Amino acid sequence: MRTRFHQDLEQLTVMLEQMCLGDGNAIAMATDALLNADIEQAERAIDLCARVAAMGEECEESAVMLLALQAPVASELRRVVTALQLSGNLARMGGLCAHLAELVRRRHPEPVVPDSLRDTVARMGAAAVHMAGSAARVLATGDAEGAAGLDAEDDVMDGLHRDLLNAVLGPEFYDGAPTAVDLALLGRYYERFADHTVEVGRRTVFMATGAVLPE
Amino acid sequence: MRTRFHQDLEQLTVMLEQMCLGDGNAIAMATDALLNADIEQAERAIDLCARVAAMGEECEESAVMLLALQAPVASELRRVVTALQLSGNLARMGGLCAHLAELVRRRHPEPVVPDSLRDTVARMGAAAVHMAGSAARVLATGDAEGAAGLDAEDDVMDGLHRDLLNAVLGPEFYDGAPTAVDLALLGRYYERFADHTVEVGRRTVFMATGAVLPE
Repeated sequence: MRTRFHQDLEQLTVMLEQMCLGDGNAIAMATDALLNADIEQAERAIDLCARVAAMGEECEESAVMLLALQAPVASELRRVVTALQLSGNLARMGGLCAHLAELVRRRHPEPVVPDSLRDTVARMGAAAVHMAGSAARVLATGDAEGAAGLDAEDDVMDGLHRDLLNAVLGPEFYDGAPTAVDLALLGRYYERFADHTVEVGRRTVFMATGAVLPE
Repeated sequence: MRTRFHQDLEQLTVMLEQMCLGDGNAIAMATDALLNADIEQAERAIDLCARVAAMGEECEESAVMLLALQAPVASELRRVVTALQLSGNLARMGGLCAHLAELVRRRHPEPVVPDSLRDTVARMGAAAVHMAGSAARVLATGDAEGAAGLDAEDDVMDGLHRDLLNAVLGPEFYDGAPTAVDLALLGRYYERFADHTVEVGRRTVFMATGAVLPE
């Protein structure tokens, strides 16, 4: 029975990793949709996010089942609890991708992102995709260095977010309040997505080692 | 031992309720700070949010301890798992109040909210305070009607949020992009706060009855 239990635990981690890879794909698609005012790509991103949400529910059910049937203790208990919490973070990341894609839908056929800020948004998207990949690797390996690397990546994202807001709030922004509002929300979605990847890294390391990374 | 276990379970619920009441106070203070450009009130709100976050960690630790020491099953397991999840929602609500208060800090001594939108923001604040109170009552009583009531209250919040965005995006908004950006973020924070109260209600009812409320 313990062998089956360990397989189930592994399976839980695999599900989290799959969710994280799904989030990475979803944010890549949402960014693509944003930069190209591509409504079909936006719809595909939204569909993918719904699948990630369904995986989150499945993951949660598996975790509760493991608690009920196996009553794990010590590091194994911590692992199941962490899976429960992370499935929330990973589902929320999908929700943020869906919000990005919904901006495209609402503005279509007009683009959300003015030409002057395409580069910044593209870089935010690339950073988010990379962070989702790093988080998936940390999930797969429990690698503490990878988790610390996510903190550094988050600093880059925060810098890009600041650049975006400064541009929107600066004297040379002529695209009007509606575009300013969309860009502020868009910036917030990317930033929150990145925060969740950091949280995934931090909690995974805690699960793997018991070590708490500094905030 | 079972009696002690049931006391600990009750205590977990009390902690969640305290967090929720703290969130209600924090959003009342943050709204007050926003409407009166009151930096001291903003600082008090931020301090309170830090205390709610600390309560969340305590609550999480208690839940993990209960899982480890008592290996609960069935409805009691569901209750501990729900407490784990809700402490995340309730801590996040505090985080959103802190974001509201930080808007005040960033703009001080200028007000965040233009006169034309004071009434809408005041009503969003009042709705959020009320929803936190309803969620705390649902936590205390497991009342399914109270949870359904939160859905209706959330519709009111969504309406106010739409009013705010329509005003910001409308032709008669002359306050400029920086104010538009702050108002868009502010609207988003209130809306997310309300969403979390709905989630608290929904999960609490599930915990109490096993019934899943429709999304």
